[in-house]
Amino acid sequence: MRIADSLLVVGLICPWLVWAGLDENAQGFGEYADQWRPDPMHEYWDPERYHRPESGRVEGVFQGEACLECHLVVTPGIVKEWRSSRHAQAEQPVLCPACHGADHAQLSLPGVKICGGCHPERLAQMEEEKQYGFPSHALAMERAVDSRHFADKPKAEVTACLQCHSVASKCDSCHTRHRFDAAEARRPEACITCHSGPPHPDDEAYLAGAHGQRYRQEGKNWDWSRPLRQGNYAVPTCAYCHMKDGNHQVADKAVWKFGIREINPESAENQIKRKRWQVVCVDCHPPEVGAVFFRALDVERSESWRKLYEVERLLKGLRSDALLTPSARERPPYPMDWLARVFPRERIGFYEGQASAFYNVSAIERDYFELWYFTNLGLYKGMAHGAGEMVRRYQERMDDEVWAIREKVGRMIKKGGVNLVPLWMKGEYTEFNRDHN
Amino acid sequence: MRIADSLLVVGLICPWLVWAGLDENAQGFGEYADQWRPDPMHEYWDPERYHRPESGRVEGVFQGEACLECHLVVTPGIVKEWRSSRHAQAEQPVLCPACHGADHAQLSLPGVKICGGCHPERLAQMEEEKQYGFPSHALAMERAVDSRHFADKPKAEVTACLQCHSVASKCDSCHTRHRFDAAEARRPEACITCHSGPPHPDDEAYLAGAHGQRYRQEGKNWDWSRPLRQGNYAVPTCAYCHMKDGNHQVADKAVWKFGIREINPESAENQIKRKRWQVVCVDCHPPEVGAVFFRALDVERSESWRKLYEVERLLKGLRSDALLTPSARERPPYPMDWLARVFPRERIGFYEGQASAFYNVSAIERDYFELWYFTNLGLYKGMAHGAGEMVRRYQERMDDEVWAIREKVGRMIKKGGVNLVPLWMKGEYTEFNRDHN
Amino acid sequence: MRIADSLLVVGLICPWLVWAGLDENAQGFGEYADQWRPDPMHEYWDPERYHRPESGRVEGVFQGEACLECHLVVTPGIVKEWRSSRHAQAEQPVLCPACHGADHAQLSLPGVKICGGCHPERLAQMEEEKQYGFPSHALAMERAVDSRHFADKPKAEVTACLQCHSVASKCDSCHTRHRFDAAEARRPEACITCHSGPPHPDDEAYLAGAHGQRYRQEGKNWDWSRPLRQGNYAVPTCAYCHMKDGNHQVADKAVWKFGIREINPESAENQIKRKRWQVVCVDCHPPEVGAVFFRALDVERSESWRKLYEVERLLKGLRSDALLTPSARERPPYPMDWLARVFPRERIGFYEGQASAFYNVSAIERDYFELWYFTNLGLYKGMAHGAGEMVRRYQERMDDEVWAIREKVGRMIKKGGVNLVPLWMKGEYTEFNRDHN
Repeated sequence: MRIADSLLVVGLICPWLVWAGLDENAQGFGEYADQWRPDPMHEYWDPERYHRPESGRVEGVFQGEACLECHLVVTPGIVKEWRSSRHAQAEQPVLCPACHGADHAQLSLPGVKICGGCHPERLAQMEEEKQYGFPSHALAMERAVDSRHFADKPKAEVTACLQCHSVASKCDSCHTRHRFDAAEARRPEACITCHSGPPHPDDEAYLAGAHGQRYRQEGKNWDWSRPLRQGNYAVPTCAYCHMKDGNHQVADKAVWKFGIREINPESAENQIKRKRWQVVCVDCHPPEVGAVFFRALDVERSESWRKLYEVERLLKGLRSDALLTPSARERPPYPMDWLARVFPRERIGFYEGQASAFYNVSAIERDYFELWYFTNLGLYKGMAHGAGEMVRRYQERMDDEVWAIREKVGRMIKKGGVNLVPLWMKGEYTEFNRDHN
Repeated sequence: MRIADSLLVVGLICPWLVWAGLDENAQGFGEYADQWRPDPMHEYWDPERYHRPESGRVEGVFQGEACLECHLVVTPGIVKEWRSSRHAQAEQPVLCPACHGADHAQLSLPGVKICGGCHPERLAQMEEEKQYGFPSHALAMERAVDSRHFADKPKAEVTACLQCHSVASKCDSCHTRHRFDAAEARRPEACITCHSGPPHPDDEAYLAGAHGQRYRQEGKNWDWSRPLRQGNYAVPTCAYCHMKDGNHQVADKAVWKFGIREINPESAENQIKRKRWQVVCVDCHPPEVGAVFFRALDVERSESWRKLYEVERLLKGLRSDALLTPSARERPPYPMDWLARVFPRERIGFYEGQASAFYNVSAIERDYFELWYFTNLGLYKGMAHGAGEMVRRYQERMDDEVWAIREKVGRMIKKGGVNLVPLWMKGEYTEFNRDHN
Repeated sequence: MRIADSLLVVGLICPWLVWAGLDENAQGFGEYADQWRPDPMHEYWDPERYHRPESGRVEGVFQGEACLECHLVVTPGIVKEWRSSRHAQAEQPVLCPACHGADHAQLSLPGVKICGGCHPERLAQMEEEKQYGFPSHALAMERAVDSRHFADKPKAEVTACLQCHSVASKCDSCHTRHRFDAAEARRPEACITCHSGPPHPDDEAYLAGAHGQRYRQEGKNWDWSRPLRQGNYAVPTCAYCHMKDGNHQVADKAVWKFGIREINPESAENQIKRKRWQVVCVDCHPPEVGAVFFRALDVERSESWRKLYEVERLLKGLRSDALLTPSARERPPYPMDWLARVFPRERIGFYEGQASAFYNVSAIERDYFELWYFTNLGLYKGMAHGAGEMVRRYQERMDDEVWAIREKVGRMIKKGGVNLVPLWMKGEYTEFNRDHN
């Protein structure tokens, strides 16, 4: 308690203690760099870009042993974590300066590049993802800030998004500092901190299925130091299937892309991806089990897209009849959408640009967005992870929402759309955003 | 990796590998057999009815040792699971052919009958449930497909239902193949794979209460090989109370039937069922604790049914005043409901047939359905498992919904119901379903 | 089974067995004592106030050994729990009569006072909370029953509230009887039985963040007998931060008060509270991490309150224009609200009395209540526990709800509010409540 007490006193009298490393004038980056500014947490989420060394507190150049001596008192938890790591137990221990530098006035926060210096294969695997497009871990940060809606949405929302999308920038999203444990990252908990909630309820899906059931029962007693290889685990976890053998490239089996778009599962490329999946399944199941499973998934996807297209057609009908109110002409275009300033047009459906339709759209367009992005994706995740009860629930939700939209469209046709003008569309939303970005 | 690689190659060149055992012309069964067809997964959900042996891949007759030799390479996970089972460790091991047959061209997938051959007492206990009516595990499959709404709902939804209802047809819903472990089935995870989500949030209820709290803390360290008997577990789990001593009959204590219907807890039959419950409680609590608990449950149930009846009365008033739009005359009857074709009539409330009112009803009838089936049942489950916080939440939800219905009824009376005609009712829904079943 | 069988028989023939200790004429307490009556469970929730000794079943005066002899047969689970406790293992064991008394006809259920007799420091710490105001454990029961809405809400709801609020009255909310284990109470499960669900989704928040991730992975293997002190736990749990060193006073660091009200985080008092927090963070993190974290929290809070105030202004506009229907004049005042009988007035916003606006308000006032009490508080909890994905989700929900209210206000202005009169407001609700309290 004495150390804590003195720290309390220090804290009370030293206001500079509460100011951290992000430059006050730090700028956004990417396509819409001018439209946003990082907040203080960005220093941790994207350290190679935003961390600025502190100065003034402790000065001097320290090699590892001296760091430990002092930090054992100041931050013993970190030292303890590091001591339990392979970094500490190696014949040539990886000491603090290896990642943070030795000059205390110029300390760095390590991002993927510093880790990749010693683990080039893992970094290369992650980088390899980029050829498969989004979604991917490697593209998580840049695709987030380069989205049109990133410039348009309230900053508090997209800032929260970046906390998870920082997986592209640093390794301790999965390997908690300073232990950096492979065993930790093999466990579902490492994944579901981010892979939860709509539109990616992977936790719900995995834990609700038969694989997750066994994991919940027994996983605590498994030997997680064993590689993700056939025979080492009674049932698969997230990483077992998606990162087999510790491969940090998770994209080369991704057929349905989170369920965001319709794809042709029979295309040559997707047939190859599908085979890659089936190779994982046969670690435990006869080959036909995986085959039936993927066939059932395709049937569900095809049926769900039929429903989504049906709703798209209804909305396109409203657009043709000029019943979408406010229309694209009546509301401010996305700031970055230069084309829309000249040719304003409702973008209905994924292929016309639905992915940017979070906000600044009429109520019925938003309804469709939620159907597609939340319910449809949740249903896909449940189906893909064999979570029967969840599938039932999301199937019901999907049908409920389809019917609610149909009903609403019917009323709009009757009333000429008049009754559904949302107040906040009339310029206010975008102005509001501009003022607070 | 070499085996996996060669499997990949095999998979790519052998399309017949991806075709499994369900007969393409397989028919539905039960009262509405003509109205639906099984999908590929039915082979696994109801194997005695739908599994059709594959042929063409491997031929020959094998006794156990030969099976193992090959499958140790092809599907080592399964072999490992079996080796850890009592089947493998018995003096006379129960080898593969005992359940699957020996002729590889005629392999069977075992359902309850094959398991019951060696475990007749367990099968008899489950069968005994049938005398207590639904809900029950033993009736789960046939009651599902014999429901009127099974023929009317979109097939994707009811198919998802069957995944869990397959508990009636096979034993590996709870005892994962090929370990078939009693210890596994004793744990809550074995149950909550299905017993989750509305209308049966048993996972939420159990885990939120004091029993579940202790289980979450310590359950991982309990010795689950011990029978479900007094003194063996610090707090009860699902199976401890509902399947005491491993009794596979779960229905003889069921007083409130999931909360679906109002019952008289004072009837002679229910008094006996209640006493059977109290006998379980006294394993840990003085008798009056169980008594107070059940009294509180009865009070809640009586209060909740008072609310449900109040809403029923409002809806019956709308029906009398011909304000339910569309009325039963205006919408297509359930295909199987011959009587309704001649005498169309809104069925309001459980005793008139609310259990079939998932769809094809007016919006306000659906509201009542959700109040009764989701909120009311969730409240019951919370109360029955002592989950205080959950009870508070569902009480609020119930009252919110009752008030929303009151308000809507008030508006309907004012407007003559005109404003609430749902578009999709006008025949489309049923036609749509017919086309896709 | 023989004991259970005979108990069954006893139960069937002895109706008095099912009647427990609460006096049939027991009265409410607190400011609104006349407005409510305790239900049977109150005996357990507030034993010092409501437990009434049973009589008639077993008579006599017993010292500990005699108690155990009999209860080892009647309630072996309890005896087993006690035997595993420090009470049993002490040199001078704390036997049954120490807490329950020796006269079987006058047995007591112990509340905080009896426990505090031997643990005065812990009781004093809890009592110390009272100087910091609500929320607090120590005030949980009295503030609940002294709330104006306690007298107005349906009793089933507020009764459910009291199950958790009983934490003020007894110690086994966290230390399960009869083991009364400190190790148990140190674990998150002890807290989240109550701290879950809106408006206090602490379980969701903790388990979704990085701390919770590690706990979920490894917590089962930690040595929970160790005190909540630096170096003993890899990551903090609820109690580690909020009850450091086992301090049973949880209020002296509470800056934002659950997010219920806006505060000035720069006030001298809050600066001191904040420093107390930072002292906890430095157990593991360099001081600037805590500082950045709290700064981000303040930014979020300030932004959220800006939104809440914006909505308040909209509602105040409706009030000025007499568009809130029903108005305070048109609906029955809260029974206890004497001033409102003379000067009826909509209370909009926390500072005007929003905390009592659960019910008996117009639809739009309720919308605001839900925004403030459920969404805003959930967002705060996510932010305060570093649960990025949850923050994103609640940020979206908050913005959605703000926009929905704006839209509704726009429609009300257009229509003069006429369309939104809720039926149930016209006196019925309060009457209904009165009849059933």
